[in-house]
Amino acid sequence: MSSERAALAPERFVLSDGTIYLDGNSLGAMPVGVPAAVEDALHRQWAADLITSWNDNGWWQLPARIGDRIGALVGAGPGQVICGDSTSVQLFQTLVAAARLRPGRTVLITDGGGFPTDQYLTDSVARLLDLEVVRIHPSELARHLDARTAAVSFSLVDYRTGELFDLAGVTAATHAAGAVMVWDLCHAAGALPVRLDEAGVDLAVGCSYKYLNGGPGAPAWIYVAAGLQAEIDLPLTGWHGHRSPFALEQHYAPAASIEQARIGTPPLLSMLALDAALDAFDGIELSAVRAASLALTDQVIAYADEQLTRYDVEVVTPRAASRRGSHVSLRMPSAYEVCQALIARGVIGDYRAPDMLRLGLTPLYLSGQDVDRAMAELRDVLETKAYQAVEFARSSDHPVT
Amino acid sequence: MSSERAALAPERFVLSDGTIYLDGNSLGAMPVGVPAAVEDALHRQWAADLITSWNDNGWWQLPARIGDRIGALVGAGPGQVICGDSTSVQLFQTLVAAARLRPGRTVLITDGGGFPTDQYLTDSVARLLDLEVVRIHPSELARHLDARTAAVSFSLVDYRTGELFDLAGVTAATHAAGAVMVWDLCHAAGALPVRLDEAGVDLAVGCSYKYLNGGPGAPAWIYVAAGLQAEIDLPLTGWHGHRSPFALEQHYAPAASIEQARIGTPPLLSMLALDAALDAFDGIELSAVRAASLALTDQVIAYADEQLTRYDVEVVTPRAASRRGSHVSLRMPSAYEVCQALIARGVIGDYRAPDMLRLGLTPLYLSGQDVDRAMAELRDVLETKAYQAVEFARSSDHPVT
Repeated sequence: MSSERAALAPERFVLSDGTIYLDGNSLGAMPVGVPAAVEDALHRQWAADLITSWNDNGWWQLPARIGDRIGALVGAGPGQVICGDSTSVQLFQTLVAAARLRPGRTVLITDGGGFPTDQYLTDSVARLLDLEVVRIHPSELARHLDARTAAVSFSLVDYRTGELFDLAGVTAATHAAGAVMVWDLCHAAGALPVRLDEAGVDLAVGCSYKYLNGGPGAPAWIYVAAGLQAEIDLPLTGWHGHRSPFALEQHYAPAASIEQARIGTPPLLSMLALDAALDAFDGIELSAVRAASLALTDQVIAYADEQLTRYDVEVVTPRAASRRGSHVSLRMPSAYEVCQALIARGVIGDYRAPDMLRLGLTPLYLSGQDVDRAMAELRDVLETKAYQAVEFARSSDHPVT
Repeated sequence: MSSERAALAPERFVLSDGTIYLDGNSLGAMPVGVPAAVEDALHRQWAADLITSWNDNGWWQLPARIGDRIGALVGAGPGQVICGDSTSVQLFQTLVAAARLRPGRTVLITDGGGFPTDQYLTDSVARLLDLEVVRIHPSELARHLDARTAAVSFSLVDYRTGELFDLAGVTAATHAAGAVMVWDLCHAAGALPVRLDEAGVDLAVGCSYKYLNGGPGAPAWIYVAAGLQAEIDLPLTGWHGHRSPFALEQHYAPAASIEQARIGTPPLLSMLALDAALDAFDGIELSAVRAASLALTDQVIAYADEQLTRYDVEVVTPRAASRRGSHVSLRMPSAYEVCQALIARGVIGDYRAPDMLRLGLTPLYLSGQDVDRAMAELRDVLETKAYQAVEFARSSDHPVT
């Protein structure tokens, strides 16, 4: 345990006194620079400058500019990431495009334990393109890859268990079979170093409201490796992705760059908030974030092993650091009620059906002492059976991912 | 001319002194209630309440709640409109769904003069589903409709000319041929009464940053007629549209309601700004907006006819009120330079290649006197040839639609 460890940059976030926030893996805390940026977006850019902001305040360039900033956090060189739309929409884009890169191949492989939207969009794309979906656990990949495999799409971190998969190894195996690799980085971007370029990843998507702290529903992003940009064939052919959007031509011709992955007009207020939010990473190395994250997840795991097994609490997250993301999942009886009892005490984690308490550890704003206090509260809730007083209200549970 | 006409509700908007804004058809002015709503979204909902806002601040319900508010402005009863994503994405959704409603039919009819993104998405959907695209002018519809027609999609108001098409008549003709009707209401919603339910429209989409004043890139919306919701089959199967999103099931099953048209997590800051922006319509009848809009467009047309023909200015917009939306397009030599010269004088309109000056007339915040002054400036720019001093910079023209 390392309870003396300070948060890396708590002064960069607006945090509520008395709250210990263990749900940055669902919605990151608000960076301090966001309100001023949004106020400027409203009063100066929108209300005063009006339509001229597209040129004069750089609105048109914003998706690519933010894309490059996110790219720098996931190991992507400039010109390969663009910001916009939701993860679900970006998954659709990448999966159709991946299949089109391998005409004649008939199988999409996805993680059967992956986040539902990934599976739903994979099924939808398979139906549109007359492909087959094979659901496996990423550990089983080797024996499912063959010459029929068009694409493999996995989340780098399992949204329930926190298991971290092997980006480079899985990508290499997929490529060895001649298939296209698509990564969903929702639970990884901003939490740990990701090396997209180095691993030769083809396509990737991610949200920006979790560890990137971009705000509720902040626009997602898509990565298209530079080497694929000449041949990629995206289905959501909105006019912003056109080679000459202002020529207003009748027929679509994609931009030669990552700009081809733009779709329609992006939600600029949300996007400008995200732009300001990314300042929280300025000058901070993801290797330092990773080291601090592992210390915090170690701390939770050690505490659970030492203090909570007597309450039938089981650590679900892999104990090997190399196989662990930035959240820890604890399986326990009455997990939903325990989660609610903790929230009532100001310790905000979340619940995953049927029996998991999920604790996100965001070292930018969480200290070892915060984690100590959270775990002590958890122990007390279990010891005193405080969770028995929680009203059963699962049907309105919030949509955390 | 009716230069004494006051704006309907200028006190509901933040307007810059000295600016006459004739581009509300591209980006509406900012309603006064937006900044406070966004500040609340940032400080209370995001920073303080964090993830609990999904339940406690109604984030989950927001797309449907805003959808109903927009529905009320386009003649749609509750439960048929949901807010989210961009118009381009929503066009993709509706066009795939429309084609799937008519299996065996092979033609999508679209407006060959329609906004490019509508045409691009129609082509993309046709390619995915192996259909043919027929481009026509809406006035030619009758002779193209036949038993091969799966769907017809038109914009209700032509983005260049301002021509208003016949919602009820076109819909009826399309239905008589057994095809599905899709309307793009980007240039109509909030500008004039639209009667989706009454006309029996099947599907519609629209943006919310033009006459709905929702802010830059404010989320779009989709209308699915109640009678189609049991059989519609949407391709963008994001988890928010699932019947039981929090059960996190492996396979997609659409919600039985309009909720099935949700995709992924929406951009909540932009959406909360839109919600506040819609207050600008509270208690205002669209028939009054329409009457005032026609008075303003009449005023522009009359002035152009009387004062500007000597400068080779031609009114492109139909003169019949029943065939006119809420903007007027004037064809003229050096239209781009004239537009820039007007902007330099605080009269903000926009330019459509190759030779059109487009003037959007938004009576909520524009008065007859504003239009008088704008037209006098236009006349002066033409008379003094002030536009000759404008530097040629079209390549960076802003993305107005």
